[in-house]
Amino acid sequence: MLTQPTLLLDKAKCLSNIERMAQKALKANVTFRPHFKTHQSAEVGSWFRAYGVDCITVSSVKMALYFANNGWTDITIAFPANILEWSTINELAAKINLNIVVESAETIHYLEKQLTNPVGTYIKTDTGYGRTGVAAEDYGTMQQLLKELKSCKNLIFIGFLCHAGHTYNTQSRDEILTIMESSRQQLLALKTFMSNDFPLIQLSYGDTPSCSVSDNFEGFDEIRPGNCVFYDDMQTRIGSCHQDDIAVALACPVVAKHPERLEVIVHGGAVHLSKDVMSINNQPHFGTVLPLMENKWLVNQPLGYVAKLSQEHGIIKMPQQAFDKVKIGDMLAVLPVHSCLTANLMKAYQSTDGSVISMMV
Amino acid sequence: MLTQPTLLLDKAKCLSNIERMAQKALKANVTFRPHFKTHQSAEVGSWFRAYGVDCITVSSVKMALYFANNGWTDITIAFPANILEWSTINELAAKINLNIVVESAETIHYLEKQLTNPVGTYIKTDTGYGRTGVAAEDYGTMQQLLKELKSCKNLIFIGFLCHAGHTYNTQSRDEILTIMESSRQQLLALKTFMSNDFPLIQLSYGDTPSCSVSDNFEGFDEIRPGNCVFYDDMQTRIGSCHQDDIAVALACPVVAKHPERLEVIVHGGAVHLSKDVMSINNQPHFGTVLPLMENKWLVNQPLGYVAKLSQEHGIIKMPQQAFDKVKIGDMLAVLPVHSCLTANLMKAYQSTDGSVISMMV
Repeated sequence: MLTQPTLLLDKAKCLSNIERMAQKALKANVTFRPHFKTHQSAEVGSWFRAYGVDCITVSSVKMALYFANNGWTDITIAFPANILEWSTINELAAKINLNIVVESAETIHYLEKQLTNPVGTYIKTDTGYGRTGVAAEDYGTMQQLLKELKSCKNLIFIGFLCHAGHTYNTQSRDEILTIMESSRQQLLALKTFMSNDFPLIQLSYGDTPSCSVSDNFEGFDEIRPGNCVFYDDMQTRIGSCHQDDIAVALACPVVAKHPERLEVIVHGGAVHLSKDVMSINNQPHFGTVLPLMENKWLVNQPLGYVAKLSQEHGIIKMPQQAFDKVKIGDMLAVLPVHSCLTANLMKAYQSTDGSVISMMV
Repeated sequence: MLTQPTLLLDKAKCLSNIERMAQKALKANVTFRPHFKTHQSAEVGSWFRAYGVDCITVSSVKMALYFANNGWTDITIAFPANILEWSTINELAAKINLNIVVESAETIHYLEKQLTNPVGTYIKTDTGYGRTGVAAEDYGTMQQLLKELKSCKNLIFIGFLCHAGHTYNTQSRDEILTIMESSRQQLLALKTFMSNDFPLIQLSYGDTPSCSVSDNFEGFDEIRPGNCVFYDDMQTRIGSCHQDDIAVALACPVVAKHPERLEVIVHGGAVHLSKDVMSINNQPHFGTVLPLMENKWLVNQPLGYVAKLSQEHGIIKMPQQAFDKVKIGDMLAVLPVHSCLTANLMKAYQSTDGSVISMMV
């Protein structure tokens, strides 16, 4: 019996999400290199094997170590290489096929000097997200970095890696497809420009919204969606998935009710859900609340939404009818706004078949 | 040598924060029952012993178990009692002096029926924060709950417990003191109203801003500040502490620089700092960035601030002069906006003397 905040994982939905993306990649003839930062779990990771996945993406050296220790032998760390961790990178590169991401001459010089084992190397390329990476149009910097990489013995240039994270700021499939198309054109132009000197350049493309709404991966060599393993409230809002595809929900006990303001208090706060938030009708929204039957949540029957979070409290707003049905001691399900951050906080899943699934510590 | 995101803890500052609050409570003749949800660490908890602390506050049954297993024998769970966890509450109550918080007749009935061991019981009282609890002016509900409690064998009524969390929405000492005074008056009036039937009512008062800026605890029997063990960027902003009092900082490696927009990218994201945010000059602010010398951060020499966070990336904005000094591979210190959530994510501290301090898992 569930008695405290518990992250439920519906394995059937999760497998179906994995299968859908794997099939899509297969059909489009691109490599599916899923980002494992969402689930951070050796067991969930192992489920991808049945769908032909043998290479993965992670977001830190620590996570690369964890999955390497769990049998993965082809890993890309899709985060600007941290030169202070060169020695762990070097050790890992001796054991597995390790790829890193660079975006400055300083990093290239330093790592080339320190490393004794070859690492595949991508240039982090920014197609408009504006978080980090070299702007795709900045051919001057690109040429300079490629010149540096050409003279490297241990940094083996592979191609350009892009995460079009600005798809997360959209609210429709059309907007996502526009961003994806613009990213594709920028990356292809860059590849063409460099193709005389580097005829084998590969293009690695990321982000769950793009890969979920599009089937057209022309020009790309691999795709790296991660969140699609679980999806979440935000992805539903963007249009990447249906609510029924979401594979995780936080079970929360009801501890108090406030009829005068139609608010229900659950044990389920910022240390469970994270403070990631959406704005819906100009109101903060920390997750959609659904009924929970045993350990299955009922989709498309929203009871309300999480309007506020403190460390352990979740404050849920409900219409009168839903409010009247909920009792102290009930368990409710919350679809997280951002499943990656919720999973990272919860550190374990309870599968809807009852088993506990552990994660990286 | 620091190579990856690491939560540094300055023990000297921490001890001085504990001592200041303990002295204040002693002088005011109120019990200091610190909230341990901020540090969640048996070792940090043990430091309070030297200042005469022998009773504590926690925010979940799980945390009560952890500290009970680490030698604490007088614990208040300052969160509306979760009736589904009655059996653990009952086991704990057999071993230690356990206090719980209730705010509904349903919870009182259920627990009285299930428990076989006595637990101290507070009524959660809302003096205007509006999160949860019975409104201090709602004498009708209060009388009803007290009547229920009077007939209980195992729920032993102690008094009213209040967390005036609306002090967090202030920006000056005067605003904090106004809220504190209003809370005090409401609680004293309530106590007076009930004193014929319950002559021994105790008043337990919380929140770090109030307890930090005021020395006047007249009328209260105990205070429960928690965050004051570390403080953070938000408490500095509110006026509860000086920047120099903050006892934790996240050390983050610089992985990329963007001169055209004066942004520095560090490894230090939402999974390290949490997404808790302040608004400064109408811009989101996720932490103040300071220089780090070995493992000591230099206060009052801000380099910039964290303007954006994704899962692993921190995006820091800096003025030109600071930007020019920072190099890829440097470690920078970030004062967290909310140290409770940062500590909860990091799951361990590195003391500035080099030792590693573990936390509840």
